[in-house]
Amino acid sequence: MAVYTEVSDEELAGFIAGYGIGSLLSYKGIAEGVENTNYMVHTDQGTFILTLYERRVAHTDLPFFLGLMEHLAARGVPCPVPLRNARGEPLGVLAGRAAALVTFLEGFWIRRPNADHCARVGTALAGLHVAGADFQLERANALGPAGWASLFDRFEDRANDVANGLGDLIADELAHLERHWPQHLPTGVIHADLFPDNVFFIGAELSGLIDFYFACNDAFAYDLAICLNAWCFEPDFTFNVTKGRALIRGYERVRPLTQPERTALPVLARGAALRFLITRSYDWLNTPAGAQVKPHDPNDYVRRLRFHQAVATFSDYGVEPGA
Amino acid sequence: MAVYTEVSDEELAGFIAGYGIGSLLSYKGIAEGVENTNYMVHTDQGTFILTLYERRVAHTDLPFFLGLMEHLAARGVPCPVPLRNARGEPLGVLAGRAAALVTFLEGFWIRRPNADHCARVGTALAGLHVAGADFQLERANALGPAGWASLFDRFEDRANDVANGLGDLIADELAHLERHWPQHLPTGVIHADLFPDNVFFIGAELSGLIDFYFACNDAFAYDLAICLNAWCFEPDFTFNVTKGRALIRGYERVRPLTQPERTALPVLARGAALRFLITRSYDWLNTPAGAQVKPHDPNDYVRRLRFHQAVATFSDYGVEPGA
Repeated sequence: MAVYTEVSDEELAGFIAGYGIGSLLSYKGIAEGVENTNYMVHTDQGTFILTLYERRVAHTDLPFFLGLMEHLAARGVPCPVPLRNARGEPLGVLAGRAAALVTFLEGFWIRRPNADHCARVGTALAGLHVAGADFQLERANALGPAGWASLFDRFEDRANDVANGLGDLIADELAHLERHWPQHLPTGVIHADLFPDNVFFIGAELSGLIDFYFACNDAFAYDLAICLNAWCFEPDFTFNVTKGRALIRGYERVRPLTQPERTALPVLARGAALRFLITRSYDWLNTPAGAQVKPHDPNDYVRRLRFHQAVATFSDYGVEPGA
Repeated sequence: MAVYTEVSDEELAGFIAGYGIGSLLSYKGIAEGVENTNYMVHTDQGTFILTLYERRVAHTDLPFFLGLMEHLAARGVPCPVPLRNARGEPLGVLAGRAAALVTFLEGFWIRRPNADHCARVGTALAGLHVAGADFQLERANALGPAGWASLFDRFEDRANDVANGLGDLIADELAHLERHWPQHLPTGVIHADLFPDNVFFIGAELSGLIDFYFACNDAFAYDLAICLNAWCFEPDFTFNVTKGRALIRGYERVRPLTQPERTALPVLARGAALRFLITRSYDWLNTPAGAQVKPHDPNDYVRRLRFHQAVATFSDYGVEPGA
């Protein structure tokens, strides 16, 4: 939640001139996005989002992210569409940063999602998976099992500063997942970060999916497992089986899960919980006091992980094995 | 530059329902405004700014500020118009804060204003002074000479931590201004903070005046003196006499200065420089490291103050005494 890079009116007017979107009417830095700087830009032709890519996003990945959004939008996924400048490129330079302009999506994220929201997110996620099938670029998941282990190496000696016993919990779970992580599941482009703040609704309708900066190639069912973690727990960390059922059924309306995917879901959900537990713990330990962006509490994911560890089968997420 | 208070979608949808401005399409926290939290709100009827008043703004003053904007807008001043809720009031409560919705003004502030911008600011300032003449509420200037002295009392012992010799400089200037501060100048409602970031332009046209949260009753010419400080110095702290002339002539196109105002302008400009020197020094010393809002460098106003101290007459600001 920050504007890291200030842009002057002259620089911005010059930058947008290359996009054929009319003349600048106003722009405001918006307090969203942890990694990058975002401005909401009005021209006499509409509203756009300008993103300046800060250091944490690897710039070699930007063609993947922007190309993916363009590809998905062309196939009806409600995501921002990158605009192309006079050279036909979606990526430019502004205020010393790689920069892109994308279309603005109306809608707002739901602080307290209900089961119907979960169903629509499931359907949209499956739609994204299907639409991404013929996307040509590839990006490995830097935050898959190997990535978790190497990130944990960087704070293992301080893990217990986050929570008592956290070091052992993570080490044991990494060992378990290394033995049991499923192979050969159906893979393709996944969003990998489809939390409520990345999904817009207007009324009951899902109006947009945003923030594709963790998108990568990985198992589709892992993306669903991330959503189980992100959407189906209550504020008291209990799992809401009605929301779980709605999410999975919504997903299967577009893309039915295979039997190996169903069988793998509990271990994928453990992996997803561990992924956020590890990245949040790392951020927790490495965010300077008083930083503009407050880190999330890693302990939320200890609670989620413990739930998934106790799950026996797919049906514990609310759907009968054969349903 | 911060969002201090998060607002949930449900709270906001409930809040705007009382205003008859249609249904909520989106809202984004905007990284502008030092004192308050601001959101840009889209409904199916347009764009609005939602302001949540944080602690630094005295809530007893809010009827003055909001009433003033309504009064000025009705008289053609291009400023945000507060909306009235179902109870006919411009002020409501949202997320535990006093809150108001105002119309959104297109335009953006000019990082490097030229003389033409200064002329238009001068004209708009005079327009504001004329339009405010029949506004019924009153608010004393809390940051007039008495306010400067009492604020200085709170950091005098640490003033030299800001800059060598700053304590003596301020104390001497306060003493000088106490002896020479003009009385009996024409007074009325002034903006009191009309810096470039509070004035929007679209192309060459001035499209909006914002941020009335320092507005008060005081000498009109003091408001012009603030603008001389805010608009007519170059980045190297030299005074640009062409801009000074443009500002004053632009002002006089609507409201000619009286002879006592002309005579007083150098001392008013010293006072204006001292006002920002004192408040910035106070903020500099009292902003925690790592705060979301970075304080301005007070030394910019040492340089401006020294310029005004050397000014002999009104004509040094670029306009002949009788012009």
